[in-house]
Amino acid sequence: MKINYLCVFQDFDLASIYVSDAQYNRNIYFDTSPEAVRLYLRYNHWLAKVLLYFFILVDLSLALFEEPAVLPLPIWATMLVELLCLLVFTIRLAHYAKVIPRDKFWKDPKNICIIVILLLTLVDMIIYGALKATNCYGVRWSRVLRPLLLVNVTEGRQLRRAFRSIRNALPQIFYVFLLFMFSLLMFSLMALKLLGKRGLKTIDGAPYFTNYLEIVFDLYVLVTTANSPDVMMPAYNSSFVFAIFFILYILINTYIFMSVFLAVVYNNYKKYLKEEVRQLVRAKRHKMARAFAVLQEHREEGGQPVVSQANWNQMVRLVQPDISNAHRELLWSVADDKNQGYIGKVAFVQLVDLLNIEVITLKSRPHPLQSACPALYLSAPSRLLCRLVQHRAFVIVYDLIILVNAVFIGLDEENPMVSNSEWVFLALYLLEILLKLYVFEPKAFFSRHSFWNWFDTIIVVSALIATIINSAMKSTGGYTSRQILDIVFILRVLRLIRVVDSIKRFRAIINTLIRIGPAILTFGQLIIVVYYIFAMVGMELFKGKVKFFEEDSTDPDKAFCGNTDLKGTAFAQLNYCKNNFNNVVSSFILLVELTVVNQWEKLEDNLVNAMETIDNDQGAGQPVDNRPALMFKIASKRYRTVDALLQRMFEADLDPEDFAENDDPDGNFANPTFSSA
Amino acid sequence: MKINYLCVFQDFDLASIYVSDAQYNRNIYFDTSPEAVRLYLRYNHWLAKVLLYFFILVDLSLALFEEPAVLPLPIWATMLVELLCLLVFTIRLAHYAKVIPRDKFWKDPKNICIIVILLLTLVDMIIYGALKATNCYGVRWSRVLRPLLLVNVTEGRQLRRAFRSIRNALPQIFYVFLLFMFSLLMFSLMALKLLGKRGLKTIDGAPYFTNYLEIVFDLYVLVTTANSPDVMMPAYNSSFVFAIFFILYILINTYIFMSVFLAVVYNNYKKYLKEEVRQLVRAKRHKMARAFAVLQEHREEGGQPVVSQANWNQMVRLVQPDISNAHRELLWSVADDKNQGYIGKVAFVQLVDLLNIEVITLKSRPHPLQSACPALYLSAPSRLLCRLVQHRAFVIVYDLIILVNAVFIGLDEENPMVSNSEWVFLALYLLEILLKLYVFEPKAFFSRHSFWNWFDTIIVVSALIATIINSAMKSTGGYTSRQILDIVFILRVLRLIRVVDSIKRFRAIINTLIRIGPAILTFGQLIIVVYYIFAMVGMELFKGKVKFFEEDSTDPDKAFCGNTDLKGTAFAQLNYCKNNFNNVVSSFILLVELTVVNQWEKLEDNLVNAMETIDNDQGAGQPVDNRPALMFKIASKRYRTVDALLQRMFEADLDPEDFAENDDPDGNFANPTFSSA
Repeated sequence: MKINYLCVFQDFDLASIYVSDAQYNRNIYFDTSPEAVRLYLRYNHWLAKVLLYFFILVDLSLALFEEPAVLPLPIWATMLVELLCLLVFTIRLAHYAKVIPRDKFWKDPKNICIIVILLLTLVDMIIYGALKATNCYGVRWSRVLRPLLLVNVTEGRQLRRAFRSIRNALPQIFYVFLLFMFSLLMFSLMALKLLGKRGLKTIDGAPYFTNYLEIVFDLYVLVTTANSPDVMMPAYNSSFVFAIFFILYILINTYIFMSVFLAVVYNNYKKYLKEEVRQLVRAKRHKMARAFAVLQEHREEGGQPVVSQANWNQMVRLVQPDISNAHRELLWSVADDKNQGYIGKVAFVQLVDLLNIEVITLKSRPHPLQSACPALYLSAPSRLLCRLVQHRAFVIVYDLIILVNAVFIGLDEENPMVSNSEWVFLALYLLEILLKLYVFEPKAFFSRHSFWNWFDTIIVVSALIATIINSAMKSTGGYTSRQILDIVFILRVLRLIRVVDSIKRFRAIINTLIRIGPAILTFGQLIIVVYYIFAMVGMELFKGKVKFFEEDSTDPDKAFCGNTDLKGTAFAQLNYCKNNFNNVVSSFILLVELTVVNQWEKLEDNLVNAMETIDNDQGAGQPVDNRPALMFKIASKRYRTVDALLQRMFEADLDPEDFAENDDPDGNFANPTFSSA
Repeated sequence: MKINYLCVFQDFDLASIYVSDAQYNRNIYFDTSPEAVRLYLRYNHWLAKVLLYFFILVDLSLALFEEPAVLPLPIWATMLVELLCLLVFTIRLAHYAKVIPRDKFWKDPKNICIIVILLLTLVDMIIYGALKATNCYGVRWSRVLRPLLLVNVTEGRQLRRAFRSIRNALPQIFYVFLLFMFSLLMFSLMALKLLGKRGLKTIDGAPYFTNYLEIVFDLYVLVTTANSPDVMMPAYNSSFVFAIFFILYILINTYIFMSVFLAVVYNNYKKYLKEEVRQLVRAKRHKMARAFAVLQEHREEGGQPVVSQANWNQMVRLVQPDISNAHRELLWSVADDKNQGYIGKVAFVQLVDLLNIEVITLKSRPHPLQSACPALYLSAPSRLLCRLVQHRAFVIVYDLIILVNAVFIGLDEENPMVSNSEWVFLALYLLEILLKLYVFEPKAFFSRHSFWNWFDTIIVVSALIATIINSAMKSTGGYTSRQILDIVFILRVLRLIRVVDSIKRFRAIINTLIRIGPAILTFGQLIIVVYYIFAMVGMELFKGKVKFFEEDSTDPDKAFCGNTDLKGTAFAQLNYCKNNFNNVVSSFILLVELTVVNQWEKLEDNLVNAMETIDNDQGAGQPVDNRPALMFKIASKRYRTVDALLQRMFEADLDPEDFAENDDPDGNFANPTFSSA
């Protein structure tokens, strides 16, 4: 191949973009002109993304300072910040418009969505500002649109997918819901006919089951089992036959129908997600094929095109500059198993999955003390110490110390013996960390994946600092800061969590939970979008309707939360006044309380799948002896992206042809290859 | 092959036993001597099984008549019945002992179990009888053993499998539970430290979160969300920061931990069930191979052994006498696709799955009226009527009638207009059935799988009978029997369910539910075993502790359910007195009430799997015209046995080698073949 240097450079840029798009499952149909490619690289820069999310966060947090505010700020201040946010979003969008072809830009609903949101927000701000300037009543209605930005930015892929899957499952769910309603109405009718004429009384002496709509409501609540068994007691007291009616009702409507609901949701959600993942995989293969087309060369006349190791190396350096030479060669040796120096299309396409596996390069370095003072470090007492610290008994002793510590924490800390013991425990924990640092190579001990080592050190050191500050304040001013004491307490209890790490089974469960973290994060974003919209609407509708009075307030309105409608209600009696929509924090807490019904089935599927993979623990830092000079270790089967996790989950379910390379030139994700040579 | 007739007859008996064992997944290692085979056939007779289950039912129902009884019977009566039951169980066991080799009998834990149960029951009855005869206090402790019979009889296969799967999943569940307890204790400790010293008060004015054990209990209850948000309100009122503590707690312990629990249970249950099903499939193939070995002949010297169609026919006639010739030939033609007149081992082994598919033989018979009076039945008005009844509008009109009927049922039936309208509706429903019988062939209309036709007819006819009885009693005696009126009401409401059948989506959901019936039944048996044991223990411990007084009782003890310990408690105030262990019915209802928390996830998996198969509806009876003379239709993908359902569920997951024929002579299920020729 005879290409001048500039072109080759451009080629590598393009290929590396294709590969990194495949790696992170970006489906952006970008222009392949050199300028657009450079812009695209900048568009995908991590700093740009962090900035974007930072400004989205700022935009969302504005609700804290806008009326009804937690911390009131003048309108001009929040407005200015919001304008700044809008500006950032506009710039980002303009950047995106430059990267992709014009017609693609205007056909994409998410771009239209963002433009509409930005324009509506601007209009709302102007109207609101004008109304406030003339002292009129105004509603900041555009605030409900803010979380939609989270969904519609280019990076909100997972979130969009989740919403799409939910939307697609809705029709099926609707039919089950209809059938459920039908069953509810039938049972209510039967209850009315069977029980309405018997003259039964509820515990309050009210007539029992005589009004159809009330029965429907009572039986609806019974599905949540909230009024069980109260709702059936009058009938049961009259005859045990009626208990069978209620048991049948609960069996059908609570157990069977809710199972059908769940099964339908689960089934449909999974079905649509699978379809989406199938498309993702197809797009990924396609992009790798594109990259291959850019890098390929013909070794022999008429032979299959191949990619040489040199080209591969140069491309990987662009895609992942932080990868070590050894790691890169490891990947190559996996792909080029015959050691030919070049690979074909199939092997090349598979390389993207290898790139996604996190590999830790363990360098068996000697301990710095050994280098500094080998005589001392390798002496008999030092070696004995190392053996002791690495012994199983060392872990057991410290687990026992933690247990004793737990008992001491539970005791009254006013007792001087107990409060002084804290220093002993702190010293013991510090000693443990120092001993471990003496035995294990510090860089390995504090490697990126040694979660528990980091956890321990941070907790112990911050507990030390907080305790010192606390006792310093006590001895000087004679008083204790409640906040600092709280922090000290929290740190003390957190320290106890360490015991989990010593039991293998527990570690496996915790690691599983950490592994499904990204999937939970997507779900969390989804929840925040929904909560935010509800909070904004709720605040506009209900702000100030329910007031909270401090404990020591003597205001007579305190008895009914400042709202005469609540006089004598259970809400006021139970002192629920703080459950209100008076600011965004209260609103979120209230919405969480309302959500607290058993709806955690969404997580389950990910959990089940994540649990099926066998755990491989990182363990603590590695001891220094008897190791080869260089080792690779698969960091974990944890995936860098949710997409990769999803693909693995459905891998067994996907048809084999989806893994075949597929050039599909009319596909949604196809990029035209302009021969830039 | 030259074998005398007797031997051939014996051979077919043996082969048919192997096939039917494979079909129903029986794993009984029976003797193959002619006598044992005949005994085995009798052992598997449906009448023997029905009798067995009848006596188990009688034995279990004895709790209704034994003290504390719903209907008290003298001790000698219940004792006699129980002795009869014990006798039946002993005979059944003795029969079993004759069928299988002696050493196998004594090695099987379920036989030992039954013997121990029988002996203990006998001992208990003697002791109890003696104590009662001397007027001493006695406890019938052996009653808790009764439900174990349900598990240990030969036919309790599914139940044993479910218990085994649960038992195998326990260790994993235990570890998650430990971690959950650890998390609970940590959070409680933190709550004590953070909130205990703030002097907060609960709504009752009691100190808030000052006692560690009380905190643990409160937070444990919070996991079930039963005391949310009450438990957090004092802390939340003091500062919103504490709300975050509680939200974090609920997030971790309710959502995440409960998801992990479920995932572990689901995963382990599925894993062990899959292993069991794998063994089942292996055993089934093995038994079919045995049957093949019995029936095989060699067509050519040195060729593969085969089974001829004649042998196959004779065997099927023994295995399923009720199968039609046409159906049998259909199965054969599927297996012998090259029409050779004989099949090899692989095809033979697969035949058992074909036998398990329910096939309806639809004979396109002319309507009896057509045969009787063709001139009238085929006349223009008659044909018009047939077209009308088969028209979509006919269904819609009757759906509308049902809706109007629903409104009338809801109205006050004291109104003469409303009560007379009932006759109109009854007449309309009867007319519908008669019209359909006129149009559709009656035998097809009332075929075994036309669930809705049977449902309609039974409901309408019984409603007619009950209404006639009711009005007859009213007009003669002038009074209405409450019971009959109740039945009339129930039948009227049930009639409305019919509307579900006209909407295709609803029908699909209902059919899915019917399909997973057998799986639910196994689960129901499991629940009954557990409930029965708890009810027996509860009755011995708590009988008479809580008393129920009738509504009109003036006994002063009524205010506290006859137990001074309950004075002023919420239990007595809410009139829960009937929730007691005073007899077996009350006990069961109480146990159901205690179970009413959301635990319906077990059903889900079956549901999901059942839902994945596309529905094929039976529809109503077939219209008579334009049909071939003979048609086959797969009745449904419903399975006759739970085992078959399970095997289908896991089919995709099973390794292909499990489907390979596998003679495995040392396997658990192997039967020796004595060459009886």
